[in-house]
Order: sequence, then structure tokens, then C-alpha cells
Amino acid sequence: MTNKIQEIIQSIKAVDQSKSHEIQNALDNLTKPRGSLGNLEEVAKKYCLITGRLKPARTAVPGMSAVAEMSATPATAAMSAMPAIRNKTIITMAADHGVAREGVSAYPQEVTRQMVINFLQGGAGINVLARHVGARVIVVDMGVAFDFESFDLESLGLESLSGLVRKKVAYGTKNMLLGPAMSREEAFLSIERGMEVVEENWGQGIDLLGIGEMGIGNTTASSAILSAITGQPPERVTGRGTGIDEDRYQQKIAVIRQALQKNAPNPDDPLDVLSKVGGFEIGGLTGVILSAAARHVPVVIDGFISSAAALIAVKMAPAIVDYLFAAHRSVEVGHQLMLEYMGLTPLLDLRLRLGEGTGAALAMNIIEAGVKILNEMATFDQAHVSREE
Amino acid sequence: MTNKIQEIIQSIKAVDQSKSHEIQNALDNLTKPRGSLGNLEEVAKKYCLITGRLKPARTAVPGMSAVAEMSATPATAAMSAMPAIRNKTIITMAADHGVAREGVSAYPQEVTRQMVINFLQGGAGINVLARHVGARVIVVDMGVAFDFESFDLESLGLESLSGLVRKKVAYGTKNMLLGPAMSREEAFLSIERGMEVVEENWGQGIDLLGIGEMGIGNTTASSAILSAITGQPPERVTGRGTGIDEDRYQQKIAVIRQALQKNAPNPDDPLDVLSKVGGFEIGGLTGVILSAAARHVPVVIDGFISSAAALIAVKMAPAIVDYLFAAHRSVEVGHQLMLEYMGLTPLLDLRLRLGEGTGAALAMNIIEAGVKILNEMATFDQAHVSREE
Repeated sequence: MTNKIQEIIQSIKAVDQSKSHEIQNALDNLTKPRGSLGNLEEVAKKYCLITGRLKPARTAVPGMSAVAEMSATPATAAMSAMPAIRNKTIITMAADHGVAREGVSAYPQEVTRQMVINFLQGGAGINVLARHVGARVIVVDMGVAFDFESFDLESLGLESLSGLVRKKVAYGTKNMLLGPAMSREEAFLSIERGMEVVEENWGQGIDLLGIGEMGIGNTTASSAILSAITGQPPERVTGRGTGIDEDRYQQKIAVIRQALQKNAPNPDDPLDVLSKVGGFEIGGLTGVILSAAARHVPVVIDGFISSAAALIAVKMAPAIVDYLFAAHRSVEVGHQLMLEYMGLTPLLDLRLRLGEGTGAALAMNIIEAGVKILNEMATFDQAHVSREE
Repeated sequence: MTNKIQEIIQSIKAVDQSKSHEIQNALDNLTKPRGSLGNLEEVAKKYCLITGRLKPARTAVPGMSAVAEMSATPATAAMSAMPAIRNKTIITMAADHGVAREGVSAYPQEVTRQMVINFLQGGAGINVLARHVGARVIVVDMGVAFDFESFDLESLGLESLSGLVRKKVAYGTKNMLLGPAMSREEAFLSIERGMEVVEENWGQGIDLLGIGEMGIGNTTASSAILSAITGQPPERVTGRGTGIDEDRYQQKIAVIRQALQKNAPNPDDPLDVLSKVGGFEIGGLTGVILSAAARHVPVVIDGFISSAAALIAVKMAPAIVDYLFAAHRSVEVGHQLMLEYMGLTPLLDLRLRLGEGTGAALAMNIIEAGVKILNEMATFDQAHVSREE
């Protein structure tokens, strides 16, 4: 393991739960029956504990009367800093997979690079949903099998590729059916480059981080990771990805089984699993998670592939799980197993299976709603509302 | 039945599903695997069918490149008007319940009027979540047992009560344990006054309507309505409302059983059910639903009490169900039974049980996300992305 990765792993501690009671008290003082906002209250509490920002913000709120605001001020005394979510960021990483040539996807490999351009143009699902929730999207090339410089930008309506963050480790992974998807050095590199993306954007402020991905063939890699780490057989962890027919589905399961036999990844060495059957965007997202957790930034993991990156991160540093929110339960069959393995409960269940960070965007909005409840709701005393009898 | 109610019931037709295929095609042309945005696609389709606005809007979108926008324009040719959601409105109705004096709630009756003031001050849960999703809240007094004019406004930091819509039918219902909660005339009146709220706000435009409520004792009324209409025994439809202990819970079940025996509401006459064991805010919301459906406005029903109003509306005009979105699955035990009875699947499951319209606010945001997907995502042709092989 490189020094850089070693150091960050050692810096990640379990989240301090000691202020949990204090936050619960603040929630219980708000004008609602105790616990009646369910998961919104839970996410608010988790957000505060991760960030260490515990004091409800009582700044000017449009629609709240001036006197209500003023009377709200004294409530701030008990805690230490306000947890308002100002900067929501989604990191969407793209890479290609050598295994794509085994007919495991319904789409040709070129779709990975085409979708990267679509992200830069603002026309993809993640762009729409990120705009909807007020998040910015950072698009990263972790290993797309394409030289973006060779593109005719003008024909695409793009002025430049300045929106694309270049962290390419290689032009796609190798075919895991024939040997390791990447070298151990490339696995380290993908994680370190993922960490760099957080470091380079840290100055702009990140209050809440979502992760997503794009890569034709990456549900195959993620199923292989899940099988390698949990020991579940390929047929139990493999789904239909972008929507393949029965023949391709059986082919996909067979490919995963053979790749695992060929490479024999060591379940106790997450870096070995990543290098044997992973992907560059998956390694990159693992690095993002490590770096974010070290900075006490809550990470909202999207669907199946993002969760595979989380699985590797959790195997590297088990305390990571304290910093994660599971956005949603994907249609992809192995996703539930992943979440259970990490002990995470998804916030949403909207039958999504797009990836890109789309589910994360929607969940970030729910988390922000929970934090606003803590920040903006009046207490029983402030609003002169009677308590339970 | 009054002429006004009779007329509106006759004007409500089942939603025309004939353009369903056309909308599905538009969704399938967007740069994502078919159906991969799951419920977002379903809600977008339902929204378009209800409103009859079928054409994706291709207006200027911040973050989308100019060329992408221009190239997006031709896609508008196929359909007839854009379904953008500009004006989101939540109607929160409050009223008191005579049955509250039977010890069925954890809170004293005065909390109803105190919370109305909290709504007007902007400090309640619904205010926070409505601001979060960009919806306005219309607060309606349908029958609070309090004369708001007698309040010392200054001490509350309110300049006036102009934010409160006055539709009071009476100062709370009568105690259903002793006889009907209201007269049949009052039941009509509550529905008509609810209809008026939609009529009076129609000029401002309502693209999506959420409903919510406040009223100490109103889970008792809602459980009684559910039991009366479905024939389920009181113990199966009764939950803990704001959070009552075991003694009060058994008391609540006994009260509901006795009230149903005493009043014998006719399950085939929803107006009889409303008058015998309902509430003024429930009747008001029934009127809101009728009026919205007649205007082809989609209605997002919140939790247990809002769904009781929907249940009455659906019994009056079964086609109503086409116009409804179920926001979430409440913790309140009878809610699932209500949704199943109406054939509705909730969008969210966040263990909420606050009411006020809080779940509706969050679900409105998800529906808006779905419509934006249809409006703003690039097609395969526009983005030069390859299709399935």
C-alpha cells in the first residue's frame, strides 16, 4: 500500500456519537410529536455527528416572520456550529472495462465516452437532477478508452473540455476473463487520483458529497467485487444492468464466474479485489470516499456500482461506514446484499437503475430537508405550543 | 347532495390514457436505458396524462449548453404543450374534534390553534419543507375551536391574520361518541368551502397541489372513516397518532368502536360517513380534491388523515383516483390499508407521521424531478449517443 493511502486510512476514525443525545433533545424540542419526522430526523442527526457541526442555524429565513426569527436566536446557545448545507457536490466518474467485449452489456463501449460528452453538455439524467437539487457535478475521466482531445468539439457544441477532470489511469481496464483488470499499482493510482479530486475541490467547500459513475460493463465488475468480498455465488449477485436479455444475462454470470476462478481475488485484501475484477471509476470513487471521510464530509452513495466502491472502502477502513448515506435501493439485484453487508438502510426506493449519481442527487435533497428541519423549525417555547400531556 | 357538489362529481372523468404510449416513447428516447429511472418516469407520465400537457419543454436551462438547447428544440414537435411545474401549492387545513375530550391524543386541543399560528409564523415542519421544495402553503381554518380575532397578534409577532383563509364551518365538531360529529348540511358545507379554496386560488395558477392537515383528534376520525368504509375492525385501523401510550391506545380503539356503533354510518354513503365520524378539515380536503381533479390538477395526498379525505372523495367519484399521487407510507397503521383500498402506491417511505402536508412537500419535489427528466434530458439523437445493440 502507498504511504498516501496508508496515512488516510489511519486518519479515519469512527464518528463520535457523544453528542447524539444533545441533537435528539434539539429535535424533540421542535413543534412536532417526538420522532414524527422519522428518517428526516435520523439523517439530520447523522449529518451533524459526521460533520461535528451541531448548532441549529438561526439565520434569516424567507417566509419566517422577523419576530419568530428573533425569538429563535436563544435556542442556538447549546451547540457549537451551524450545520447548514450550502455546497452540494456530486462526483461522477467514468471509465471503460475490458470485459465489455464479452457481450455483458446491452450497449456498445463507445457509449461511455458519448455519455461523458453528454454530462459536459448538461443533457444527461444526472445533470437534470443535480440542477433540480442545486448540486454541482464534477465529471471525471478515470479511464475512458478514448482520447477526448481527438474530439471535434465544435460539432458537439462544446467550447472546451475544461469541464472534464482528467485523471485517466489507462484507456480502460483489461479483460478480467483473461487476467487481472488492472495491476496493483494501477489500483493504488486510481484510488489516489480519486482522493486528488476531493483535495482539488476542497477549497470551494463541500458540505455534502454525492458519488456516481458511468462505464459500460461496470455492473459486471461490481457483481464480481461483491461475489469476491462476500463469497456469494455469481448468480446471486448478478443483475441485468442496463437491461440485458436472458442469453446475455446467463453469459454475464458465466463471465463473472470464470473471471473469479481465473484471478482468485483475496477477499481479505480489498486492493487485490479491486485490481483483479474492479474498474478505474470504482477505484476512483473508493479514493473519493476515503478522502471525504477523512475530512468529515458525509458521502451519499448512489446505486450498485457506487456501493461496490464503498464496499472496498469499508473493507480498507471499517469506520468509513459511519460517514455513508445509502441514497436508494437499486433495482440491481446485488445492491440489497451490498447494503446489508455494510449495515446501511437506503433512504429511497424509486426503482432506479441508471447510476451516474441520479439517486444520490435525490437523496441529498432529502438529507438537506432533514438538516433544515433542525435549523429552521420553531421550538415549543418559541412558538408557544403546548407539549404532550 | 347540493347542486354544486353534484355538478363537480359529474364533471370528473377518468384520465384519458390514450397518449400513454406517446409519452413512453419520449421517455425511451432519452439518453438512459429504457425504464432505468423507474418511478420518476412513471410519475412524469402520470403527471402529463392528468394535465393533458404532453410536450417536453425545451426552454433555456442553466447549465445546459446553448447548442444542446438548440438541438433539443426539434424534439418538441411531437406533443402539444409543455408540462413544466411552475406553481406548487400546498393546502393545509385545520379543525378541531369534539372527540378530543375523550383522551384519544397525547396533546391538548389548544395545540390545533397554536399550530395554526405557528404555520402563519413560518416555524412549523410544513413551512420548512415547503420552502425547501419551493411550494407555497395556504393555511385554512376549517373549524378550529377558537376565535382567532381574539388573539393578541403583537405578542405573537404577527402583523395580521391575513395569511389565514377563513372557512370555519363551526368551532370544532361534536363528540362522535355522543352522536354525529356534524350535521349532513355541515358535511356539505365543509366540502363546498374546500372547493372554494381551490377556486379562489385558481387564478394564480396551480400546477401541482399538495394537501395536509392539523387537528388534535383527527387520527381518531380518520380511523373511524376507514373502518366505516372498508368494514375493517377498529383495532386493525387504529394507530398511535401523535404517539400515545398503551392505555390511551386501548381507549382510542374503544372510542372508535363505540362511535361507530352509536352512529352506524352507511358505508355506501361517503357523506354520511363524513358527517357521522369525520371532521371539517377532512371534508374541506375532500372538496379540495374534487375541485382539483375537475380542473385536471394532480393532487399529492400526504398521510393518514389526508388519505381519509381522499377515501371519501374516491367513494363519491371513483375516477378521482386517477388524479392522486400517494406521497408516502405513513407510520400510522391504517394508512397502508387506505392506500391499498384506493390502489395507490406511495412514492416515499420515510417513517413520517407528522401530517401538515410534510410528506406531500417532499413527494412534490420527486414528481417535479420526474417532469424535469422528461423536459430537460437530451435524446439519443441530440446527444449522439448509441442505442442498445
